[in-house]
Amino acid sequence: MAVAGQQSRIKAGIVGATGYTGVELLRLLSQHPSVDLHAVTSRKENGRPVADMFPNLRGRVDLRFQTPEDAALEQCDVVFFATPHGVAMAQAGQLLAHDVRIIDLAADFRLQDTATFERWYKMPHACPTILRDSAYGLVELNRPAVRDARVIGNPGCYPTTVLLGLAPVLQADHALVDTSHVIADCKSGVSGAGRKVQLSSLFSEASDNFRAYGVAGHRHHPEISEQLQRLAGAPVGLLFVPHLVPMIRGMFSTIYLRILPEAVDTDFQALYEQRYADEPFIDVMPAGSLPETRSVRASNMLRIAVHRPEDSDQLVVLVAQDNLVKGASGQAVQNMNLMFGLPETAGLDQIAVLP
Amino acid sequence: MAVAGQQSRIKAGIVGATGYTGVELLRLLSQHPSVDLHAVTSRKENGRPVADMFPNLRGRVDLRFQTPEDAALEQCDVVFFATPHGVAMAQAGQLLAHDVRIIDLAADFRLQDTATFERWYKMPHACPTILRDSAYGLVELNRPAVRDARVIGNPGCYPTTVLLGLAPVLQADHALVDTSHVIADCKSGVSGAGRKVQLSSLFSEASDNFRAYGVAGHRHHPEISEQLQRLAGAPVGLLFVPHLVPMIRGMFSTIYLRILPEAVDTDFQALYEQRYADEPFIDVMPAGSLPETRSVRASNMLRIAVHRPEDSDQLVVLVAQDNLVKGASGQAVQNMNLMFGLPETAGLDQIAVLP
Amino acid sequence: MAVAGQQSRIKAGIVGATGYTGVELLRLLSQHPSVDLHAVTSRKENGRPVADMFPNLRGRVDLRFQTPEDAALEQCDVVFFATPHGVAMAQAGQLLAHDVRIIDLAADFRLQDTATFERWYKMPHACPTILRDSAYGLVELNRPAVRDARVIGNPGCYPTTVLLGLAPVLQADHALVDTSHVIADCKSGVSGAGRKVQLSSLFSEASDNFRAYGVAGHRHHPEISEQLQRLAGAPVGLLFVPHLVPMIRGMFSTIYLRILPEAVDTDFQALYEQRYADEPFIDVMPAGSLPETRSVRASNMLRIAVHRPEDSDQLVVLVAQDNLVKGASGQAVQNMNLMFGLPETAGLDQIAVLP
Amino acid sequence: MAVAGQQSRIKAGIVGATGYTGVELLRLLSQHPSVDLHAVTSRKENGRPVADMFPNLRGRVDLRFQTPEDAALEQCDVVFFATPHGVAMAQAGQLLAHDVRIIDLAADFRLQDTATFERWYKMPHACPTILRDSAYGLVELNRPAVRDARVIGNPGCYPTTVLLGLAPVLQADHALVDTSHVIADCKSGVSGAGRKVQLSSLFSEASDNFRAYGVAGHRHHPEISEQLQRLAGAPVGLLFVPHLVPMIRGMFSTIYLRILPEAVDTDFQALYEQRYADEPFIDVMPAGSLPETRSVRASNMLRIAVHRPEDSDQLVVLVAQDNLVKGASGQAVQNMNLMFGLPETAGLDQIAVLP
Repeated sequence: MAVAGQQSRIKAGIVGATGYTGVELLRLLSQHPSVDLHAVTSRKENGRPVADMFPNLRGRVDLRFQTPEDAALEQCDVVFFATPHGVAMAQAGQLLAHDVRIIDLAADFRLQDTATFERWYKMPHACPTILRDSAYGLVELNRPAVRDARVIGNPGCYPTTVLLGLAPVLQADHALVDTSHVIADCKSGVSGAGRKVQLSSLFSEASDNFRAYGVAGHRHHPEISEQLQRLAGAPVGLLFVPHLVPMIRGMFSTIYLRILPEAVDTDFQALYEQRYADEPFIDVMPAGSLPETRSVRASNMLRIAVHRPEDSDQLVVLVAQDNLVKGASGQAVQNMNLMFGLPETAGLDQIAVLP
Repeated sequence: MAVAGQQSRIKAGIVGATGYTGVELLRLLSQHPSVDLHAVTSRKENGRPVADMFPNLRGRVDLRFQTPEDAALEQCDVVFFATPHGVAMAQAGQLLAHDVRIIDLAADFRLQDTATFERWYKMPHACPTILRDSAYGLVELNRPAVRDARVIGNPGCYPTTVLLGLAPVLQADHALVDTSHVIADCKSGVSGAGRKVQLSSLFSEASDNFRAYGVAGHRHHPEISEQLQRLAGAPVGLLFVPHLVPMIRGMFSTIYLRILPEAVDTDFQALYEQRYADEPFIDVMPAGSLPETRSVRASNMLRIAVHRPEDSDQLVVLVAQDNLVKGASGQAVQNMNLMFGLPETAGLDQIAVLP
Repeated sequence: MAVAGQQSRIKAGIVGATGYTGVELLRLLSQHPSVDLHAVTSRKENGRPVADMFPNLRGRVDLRFQTPEDAALEQCDVVFFATPHGVAMAQAGQLLAHDVRIIDLAADFRLQDTATFERWYKMPHACPTILRDSAYGLVELNRPAVRDARVIGNPGCYPTTVLLGLAPVLQADHALVDTSHVIADCKSGVSGAGRKVQLSSLFSEASDNFRAYGVAGHRHHPEISEQLQRLAGAPVGLLFVPHLVPMIRGMFSTIYLRILPEAVDTDFQALYEQRYADEPFIDVMPAGSLPETRSVRASNMLRIAVHRPEDSDQLVVLVAQDNLVKGASGQAVQNMNLMFGLPETAGLDQIAVLP
Repeated sequence: MAVAGQQSRIKAGIVGATGYTGVELLRLLSQHPSVDLHAVTSRKENGRPVADMFPNLRGRVDLRFQTPEDAALEQCDVVFFATPHGVAMAQAGQLLAHDVRIIDLAADFRLQDTATFERWYKMPHACPTILRDSAYGLVELNRPAVRDARVIGNPGCYPTTVLLGLAPVLQADHALVDTSHVIADCKSGVSGAGRKVQLSSLFSEASDNFRAYGVAGHRHHPEISEQLQRLAGAPVGLLFVPHLVPMIRGMFSTIYLRILPEAVDTDFQALYEQRYADEPFIDVMPAGSLPETRSVRASNMLRIAVHRPEDSDQLVVLVAQDNLVKGASGQAVQNMNLMFGLPETAGLDQIAVLP
């Protein structure tokens, strides 16, 4: 790998770009001012032009899918894994041996607790040593580690909203909220389920409908819990209920917290504004604001509003993001930017598309 | 008014049927086996065929909109008000003088506390005496009063889901949950905002989008609170956050409760099943079920699932209904059926439309 | 089979009711005043409660899926096939031997020309003799044959709109339009593709999108052509382009015709009104009307509007239906009603659901 | 006005940016490498931050709406009118006097025939002299005139698809198709109706629905006809039927042409490819392709596919664009680029957003 300084160009590869995080990575990286797309692999689609599968890329991405063998990924500076869980950890060792940075959009490097990983993902962890050296790629909460990391576990979409929505209160100097009973009522667009062909993702099943799912347990729960404990320095009791919204992109989390009696005088609006004052991708909206997912559609922004209903000891934190950008591929590019010494916003400054 | 026994037909009028609850009433009443539609009033649309405004009624409803003066509503057995708030209470006295039953789908007869009414609806209550004799038309919780009432305040859509979702625990013999902190995270389809022409209801504003609204206060909050207090026999602390879903019909409420230490052994599934065992319009789904709004689309059913996430002292109650049927017009017909001694399900047995 | 008169009840079976036409048949038949659902078969779902797969049927349909062997379909008066193409023709002979009527919602009995069938459906026709005795189940164009038939080929959704949209001009006494160049620009909701799990039917693929498909050839083309030839008494040149609309139900066909010079004085509005004057399920709308699919949602109505743009020799016929009702399952029930001497509207009088 | 060379920056103003073409202009211009937004006017919203109305612009556009008086538009290099019809022509003279270029996204400068303008837009034309010097801003068909123009009539969305879909056959050396009967069956997303608050644009009216409109006449018809005549050198008989699709953005036109007997051997695929070979924003897709609107969502690309159904003398041209970009604001920026000597793609190279 060439040492990529701020001026040199980054050679990037993508493993398994046949899903929605993959096409979103392709959209972002092919417009990135400092990136050259080197290879896109898919054993199944070998030889097929990428733009044939994703017609928005016609005339913009000329690559064809290649087998991993042909792709020479070890010549890349960075390889993104937009694959099912388990693929990145199988290939990580070899790529690291060639000094290639790895950003995994699946779960292989999200959970430090391998027992938890194995319980939820039904496979043993293939490289616990690499895992220990990896960084959880939530830049706003983990910037120094990401900057130095060779392997990034890119956060799940739900965890991104819940963790960024809770960090200011959990990282405060004094205990502000009852951390034994945190409720995250989360809503996701259907693209969160991926491009996988399954009944529940059909238009005629998901459209004009609303439902909860995963109430009995969801893989993002242990991921959030592990990170919450890191933030709070102690276990946090989290009740997490995801729901499915009939929209393509967008994620909205409504977080409920009980304020501790000794913290009722806290200015939570100021707390959030100060915590995220320097963050280019976090917008703490003015008091009373109501974020909406379309305000971040196709952009890497995440918007937060902090509400405290009248006469109440409860805090309601509203968080909106595009699940495929800040919740996945945009965040992955943000991690790459940081790892390679680029401006964090490089290639990520698109304004959200509204309407 | 003729005394309507079980066999005789009911002559029904609708005031202001130019909105979505109006067209839904027309759909239900025109198919009702014991109802004759007598008149539909709208001063603005006077003379226009109803089916011209609502093309689904072509060939099925031959009425034209009439002025209230021409409509001779005093000849009806029952008059439904599908009007803005304030209209029913202005006309109630005169209709009652002719022994006409009144079912108001607006808020005039929902809140017994007139001070609260006036604060939220910005108008004095025109007939507090009639209000005192009216019944809150949530049949499952108030059957005897509805049966005997001459005036019904038909519940709001959100209150219907939250009250039916909470009644079993609040009406139990022993205290089961912490009633100081009940959270209702509610989601509504866009038809809940009515057929009123307003920016936020435009397709290009509401589609492919998700957002919260009314976090600082919503008119259904005091309505729910008043009824919760009735159910629980004491004030209940409710945090109510409504959200807007890009679908036409459907309402979904996710209710969060903390179980009291002394009640952790309660079989909540059995509690709900027993409470609603005889209710034709409430389906307590088997343990582990996940209701979805499309399963009740265009029907008067309301489905409930009770979840208790593992290792948790928290109860999650999921409630799904069609906001225009059980949440409005279907419930109004259910009230009428009960008031006139008809089978409660008369005219309300349509199976939900799926997909 | 018992001879079913107007008073006796019909014992109905459904083969393969795991798709959208299947659940729609179940919705309609379980509410039909003269039908008893006898059995629903699915080898794959054997033993599963039907209402478990289709939650709108909870509490309304108590049947479980059975294997064909267990279902004793030969005891039915009528069996509906809501199956892939090829299933009905394999079982028809045996059922007919038990005097069971057959209504096939797939293509096995739609095309009299078996060579065409074999070219488009890639299988030999298993029972050409039965086919010759079957009737094409478009009641409005074929009532006598349907009444007497033992086997019905239920029309495709697109053909229903195009044939009913064209019949009045093609069946007129004199030639009215240029039949060498008829254009049908048709648009279907996504449920038309069925409940089959395929990429193009995913919410994130089909939502917020519009596209044509099947321009190079669609199976409904030969079906329409065969019937057009029957109507016109000569081959009709049809250009048929289907499109996919991001809605669940609904089909809309825009038909373009060139009026012959000698027919420019024809009153086409009157022609259509007269042709369909007695049809309970066809609504020829007043001149200048614009039908919309939601006006027939979940109902068996089909609405037609006839336009003749100013100063033009062209006729534009607009046709709207619910593809799952008049375009499939409702039409199947209409066929059954006719075959068994019931009122044609029995069980089909639901008013469309709007909004 | 400073003379804007290729290197200098362009000072741009927008009149009336409170609609969807306005916010789209703001999105594009604020990301344009050579443009400075100088002022955005709205008398009604005077003083309100633009980003308060359009939350996607938060943190990216700091302007507030101003009154025209305060905005000093005469200091701009170019002023875009994203206003109702009639506004631009009232202000054009004064701006031109200050040497400001004008790009009108409404209809004031689209129709050279003022009598036609007055018939369809119900107002006299205020400045026929300026109109005569203006250019119809369909760059691909009118590049030299646009380059030299001081006033641009930015084309309507439907005309853009129909004209670009027809130009290659109409501009060919020999007559190829019957120009007396051209059919354009067009479909638009709901944003085409603008951000105007009207019943038919409500989510609950437009969602899950499909319908035709404007069959009796649409303002884009005379605009298309005038330009078709220019292209063909003779009047073209056009039948134009617009339809409304339940999606926010996107426009799809299906154009039907009858090939002349003497032209049946034409290679239409090659004709289209050659005609548009050098156009950066027109993608003539390979033979057999099926464009879809999402492949151009939020981008300035327009995709065309040319089909000739087997054994047919008919040509089917499929055209897809984003109605707000290539159909409105993106095209306006493309015009600006050309007028100011910038690369035509400047600020317009965003890849379409899919899914």
